[in-house]
Amino acid sequence: MSIPTTITQILKAGPIHFGPFTVTTQVFHLTPHSYALVNLKPILPGHVLISPRRVVPRVTDLTPTETSDLFLTVRRVARMIERVYGASSLNIAIQDGADAGQSVPHVHAHVIPRKRGDLDSRGGMDAVYEMLDGEEGDLRDVFAKDGEEGGRRTRFPRVDNEERVARSAEEMEGEAWRLAGEMEKEDLD
Amino acid sequence: MSIPTTITQILKAGPIHFGPFTVTTQVFHLTPHSYALVNLKPILPGHVLISPRRVVPRVTDLTPTETSDLFLTVRRVARMIERVYGASSLNIAIQDGADAGQSVPHVHAHVIPRKRGDLDSRGGMDAVYEMLDGEEGDLRDVFAKDGEEGGRRTRFPRVDNEERVARSAEEMEGEAWRLAGEMEKEDLD
Repeated sequence: MSIPTTITQILKAGPIHFGPFTVTTQVFHLTPHSYALVNLKPILPGHVLISPRRVVPRVTDLTPTETSDLFLTVRRVARMIERVYGASSLNIAIQDGADAGQSVPHVHAHVIPRKRGDLDSRGGMDAVYEMLDGEEGDLRDVFAKDGEEGGRRTRFPRVDNEERVARSAEEMEGEAWRLAGEMEKEDLD
Repeated sequence: MSIPTTITQILKAGPIHFGPFTVTTQVFHLTPHSYALVNLKPILPGHVLISPRRVVPRVTDLTPTETSDLFLTVRRVARMIERVYGASSLNIAIQDGADAGQSVPHVHAHVIPRKRGDLDSRGGMDAVYEMLDGEEGDLRDVFAKDGEEGGRRTRFPRVDNEERVARSAEEMEGEAWRLAGEMEKEDLD
């Protein structure tokens, strides 16, 4: 697989920051004000995040231009994710502030592809939301010291009791390349 | 309280539809392509919905212009809601399709103001999401026949076991008037 044009552009434009972290090699789509990245521990296959390039914690911190760009990107990425992962629906969710469950203080929209009955064995249709908080800590955990994770993982024993193993940097980069190629097939509207 | 200018404009512009329902008197904000409405059974005080004026089920059905307008409206309404309800954070969530929990087939973003510990007695921080599906049926239930509700309410016994009583049309209209007045104080950016 040759390197997608988009990936070359992203690497040139980087480093790209997610909160205090550098996530350039996880990014698969870049616009003037936004980017999309793959996840360390997706709740479901195809679970990705869309963020503004400027590191700000709250939606109200965004300019109108950044707001439009972010959600036009969400819509375009969501369409691609639904197609590529064969989904029938999507959850789109923002934890806007710490008291809403946000752990990395940088605006990010979760896009999670859904299929009928996909979480029946893991707590039901809406278990996806309970998993968000565990997931959201995951990118932070890449950089955390050993042993810092335990406190977080115990917060949702009902639904997050399976072992979600962190993916390798190579696996995430491979998915980013694949999704970058898929985004290049999408209409720009 | 005299009728806010916005309410007069909304009543003139109506009827406004949420899926198959007419919700004109619950609407407190109107833009060229979007509107915001108060909820029959808010999960938390200040829980409101923002929808495109065109009745379409999925985010990808929106034009780029409608998408920008919808999320600029979400951002503006969210800022007002956080101020008026004294919140510190917000949940912003879209159930985009039936398999993601959508029950009324018309795009709508939930905006839910949050405070530290606000759901500690009702299942914890993320219980808000489990309640969404019960809530989302509520507007439908206004128009449903007696006895059609039971099946839905039993889906989330863990967190939705308190009796959330439907508000009266007068109470919702009063809140819509109040929020319309508050929106008039917001900057347009």
